Amino acid sequence: MARPWILDYDTANCSIGAAVSLIGEKWTFLVLREVFNGVRRFDDMRRRTQAPRQVLSDRLSRLVAEGLLRRVPYQEHGQRARHEYRLTDKGLDLYPVMVALMEWGGKYAAGVGGAQVRLTHRDCGAPVALQLSCADGHALASAREVTPLPGPGARKIA
Amino acid sequence: MARPWILDYDTANCSIGAAVSLIGEKWTFLVLREVFNGVRRFDDMRRRTQAPRQVLSDRLSRLVAEGLLRRVPYQEHGQRARHEYRLTDKGLDLYPVMVALMEWGGKYAAGVGGAQVRLTHRDCGAPVALQLSCADGHALASAREVTPLPGPGARKIA
Repeated sequence: MARPWILDYDTANCSIGAAVSLIGEKWTFLVLREVFNGVRRFDDMRRRTQAPRQVLSDRLSRLVAEGLLRRVPYQEHGQRARHEYRLTDKGLDLYPVMVALMEWGGKYAAGVGGAQVRLTHRDCGAPVALQLSCADGHALASAREVTPLPGPGARKIA
Repeated sequence: MARPWILDYDTANCSIGAAVSLIGEKWTFLVLREVFNGVRRFDDMRRRTQAPRQVLSDRLSRLVAEGLLRRVPYQEHGQRARHEYRLTDKGLDLYPVMVALMEWGGKYAAGVGGAQVRLTHRDCGAPVALQLSCADGHALASAREVTPLPGPGARKIA
């Protein structure tokens, strides 16, 4: 695999990092951010996330145990065998969460200069974004246009 | 305001709760879930999230301080004045994060019986979902169809 371009950039202006520093425990999100950006190796993740070694190791182990990442062995010439981390389908499906955090962070929490990463359509190059829409084809502008209703799993309090 | 229907349901099967119990610090997400579902009062949030009082108070204060929630006074007959919590525009814009967590949790982490909440378009009633698409109008099926590129805020490591 080609070395991801993002390894040449620092993470100080990351929209996702900015978002989760406000709204949640950040290490797991940061690990996922790395993997979605093509960073697969422990030492790269450690350097980019600045996570303490044991914290990063714990988060990766949990993501593997939960089936979001899988460990794949690799060996470079003259070095011992190591593992890299790749997304499973279950992990890949978290992508909208990451994009949503990135969009919000880019709007409200990013540093000067704009987003560190821009997402483009692999096939046509156009910018990619999340859109909330309904099955009848209407685009929704905000949560105010959504009515939450009890779903099939809703249970009344006894 | 009418009492939200969701107050009559328990939270054990919540897709969002299931998702963030895997992927992050949960209390802030749970507070936001409550507010997006129309639950605005401390005691209701406390009962539904099961957050310790001090934890809930801390998370709410931070969300207010960061401009995601605002406190609005209310007073019921014969009771002292209290506050309820409402989303600001900055908070409302987190909605795609919540929907993305809900969709993922619904697919991978929810209990039996399906989602506790279903989202419908206020105007036409059709189910609501997030769609990843590009500016040229193509719908994207997964992260594999996205190419991340350096954005305007990307900075090379010196």
